[in-house]
Amino acid sequence: MRTQVVIIGSGPAGLLLGQLLTNAGIDNVILERASKAHVLERIRAGVLEEGTVHMLEQAGAADRLHREGLPHDGFDIAFDGRRHRVDLFGLTGKRVMVYGQTEVTRDLMTAREAAGALSVYEAEDVQPHDFDSQRPFVTYRSAGESHRIDCDFIAGCDGYHGVCRRSVPERSIAVYEKIYPFAWLGIIADVPPVSHELIYANHPRGFALCSMRSPTRSRYYVQVPPDEKIENWPDDRFWDEIRHRLPPATAEAMTTAHTVEKSIALMRSFVAEPLRFGRLFLAGDAGHIVPATGAKGLNLAVSDVHYLFEGLREYYSEGSGAGLDAYSERALARVWKAERFSWWMTHTLHRFPDQGAFGQKIQHAELDYLFSSRAALTMLAENYVGLPF
Amino acid sequence: MRTQVVIIGSGPAGLLLGQLLTNAGIDNVILERASKAHVLERIRAGVLEEGTVHMLEQAGAADRLHREGLPHDGFDIAFDGRRHRVDLFGLTGKRVMVYGQTEVTRDLMTAREAAGALSVYEAEDVQPHDFDSQRPFVTYRSAGESHRIDCDFIAGCDGYHGVCRRSVPERSIAVYEKIYPFAWLGIIADVPPVSHELIYANHPRGFALCSMRSPTRSRYYVQVPPDEKIENWPDDRFWDEIRHRLPPATAEAMTTAHTVEKSIALMRSFVAEPLRFGRLFLAGDAGHIVPATGAKGLNLAVSDVHYLFEGLREYYSEGSGAGLDAYSERALARVWKAERFSWWMTHTLHRFPDQGAFGQKIQHAELDYLFSSRAALTMLAENYVGLPF
Repeated sequence: MRTQVVIIGSGPAGLLLGQLLTNAGIDNVILERASKAHVLERIRAGVLEEGTVHMLEQAGAADRLHREGLPHDGFDIAFDGRRHRVDLFGLTGKRVMVYGQTEVTRDLMTAREAAGALSVYEAEDVQPHDFDSQRPFVTYRSAGESHRIDCDFIAGCDGYHGVCRRSVPERSIAVYEKIYPFAWLGIIADVPPVSHELIYANHPRGFALCSMRSPTRSRYYVQVPPDEKIENWPDDRFWDEIRHRLPPATAEAMTTAHTVEKSIALMRSFVAEPLRFGRLFLAGDAGHIVPATGAKGLNLAVSDVHYLFEGLREYYSEGSGAGLDAYSERALARVWKAERFSWWMTHTLHRFPDQGAFGQKIQHAELDYLFSSRAALTMLAENYVGLPF
Repeated sequence: MRTQVVIIGSGPAGLLLGQLLTNAGIDNVILERASKAHVLERIRAGVLEEGTVHMLEQAGAADRLHREGLPHDGFDIAFDGRRHRVDLFGLTGKRVMVYGQTEVTRDLMTAREAAGALSVYEAEDVQPHDFDSQRPFVTYRSAGESHRIDCDFIAGCDGYHGVCRRSVPERSIAVYEKIYPFAWLGIIADVPPVSHELIYANHPRGFALCSMRSPTRSRYYVQVPPDEKIENWPDDRFWDEIRHRLPPATAEAMTTAHTVEKSIALMRSFVAEPLRFGRLFLAGDAGHIVPATGAKGLNLAVSDVHYLFEGLREYYSEGSGAGLDAYSERALARVWKAERFSWWMTHTLHRFPDQGAFGQKIQHAELDYLFSSRAALTMLAENYVGLPF
């Protein structure tokens, strides 16, 4: 079999790239290790930048997003027992959209099926080959049979644990990494969110975040040690702890309930350089990870896809490889700015075991200064709504 | 002997406070451990915020400053072999003034002598007493004789190593401190500065700074290990090293010469809380130290004096202790913002032995983002020219 672009991974990055390519008449196949149902079970980020929304519109997969998504004009940061609002729209003229990553994935799958483009789920032993030559190909097994797809390019959208980055010789790739000394314990509960906007809380007992999936479904988090076990956190303990970390009036207003999901996520910063290896391109988590604090993971995957799609479109429609040649540098310039922002927001809002009394005072001064300076608030806001592509 | 305010320390903080008090008809005496000549030999910072200039005008000691000082509308940050300008005036409508701290001290001494106010130099064993009572006093020895001055208030302007902060019981004071793992080796040379504005350089070999005292006197620095010895740095080595750390065109334009001064300064952040203990008030380095990177040390001393003078004036002219009661909180709010800024600028421009590859990339992303964002540049600029009192 032959196609123009093989996309490895059927998460939002791979699906979005596939949809843009299909719409542009560029033939592509998506290979996904997991089942479709399993892909749709992954619960991830839910804050979309305006640029991400525009890309989903460009892909023709934004109708439900506009019907069901919750546009947010700002969010709160709580410290010293008070909430302080960051007026995203007032500071930048832009807003963000709260809409679960699972829903983005579902919408893109629906669009792909409507377009009749091929996705192979439960593809085993997917392996990219010869991407340093002019004739790359990908092999995999499906239902017990071996397959080979010849192609012009391979897009590695298969996440941090995927095969694509691991297929690159170690000497050709540099990795930069930081593991944070804490994790997020997250729950979902079918109660109205305590506030109609997100609340990020800095508290002596640790960070907390009040987010949401819908007007009736709350998504809450508390900072916990990195080796914490879920079984140590019965619902009551979670609700007690998050209310401790919020301003009293907010804690009182919080509705509690049995949780419908409970999980622990480690916090990590990771970047691989470059993102292009001959005819293999990494996009999204395959190339970089951010801690969840700035809600940048999905949005960065989308900006990678933007640069990669423009490069591929230019190649096929104008016969120019310039966009593809520039892909890695363009994508990484934006990736590192988002890594910086996520690192800054993580540092500003969490307790670090080794930060000491001086570090805590600096963190407090950072927050105190932030809400005294329009420039500082604008800096936060312009990063939160997303730097331009 | 009796006076209204005893000021301990004849650096810029003590002299400025004394001058403002004298002008307001409030009787004061300055006690200084060193000789006048020794005080005038101390070479320190040289970048004055606009608020500092206004305070010196208010004290009637700004004539020579306006004649001889160098107003600067911006400065450069160099990295990746290029210089990038921070347009302070364009971003904030304010500028800074380059004028040596020694000259500020000299101007304030001249004004004090003209006003006929008393300064005791070479005062030995200065000791504040009973400042937790209504009747504080200060003892000292001079020319072999013991003296006692009764007063209403004591101003501790005697620097980090001074007696005032050490006279406070340990249980009454909290200290916050960070020692940076490097020092600045600074030189003075009688050559024209390589640029008419300051250049802060981030380089893989370490930080460098090109500053000046006048159009014919340059003040240059390079980051060195904290235990570095001056004798390891003959002039040639210094000039070679600083040129290595600057963009090639800047290095080529640099004029070298025999150095007329060479010294090593450690980098430290330090804050004592509170700044008031009954009738004793700490101001300037007695209460807090910043690393030199943001040029905030002298300027913070001046903002402390602003709050303290307003409190004393209010007490004597209106009989209200409200300003004095608020002194510590007001001064510390601004101190911590300046500590944050100095810490940020130090982190952004220096190599840290333990920052690792990820930390270096984040530092680079910080600089890269800075020069792509007006909000981020404004944040830098508004701190550099000085936050409002």
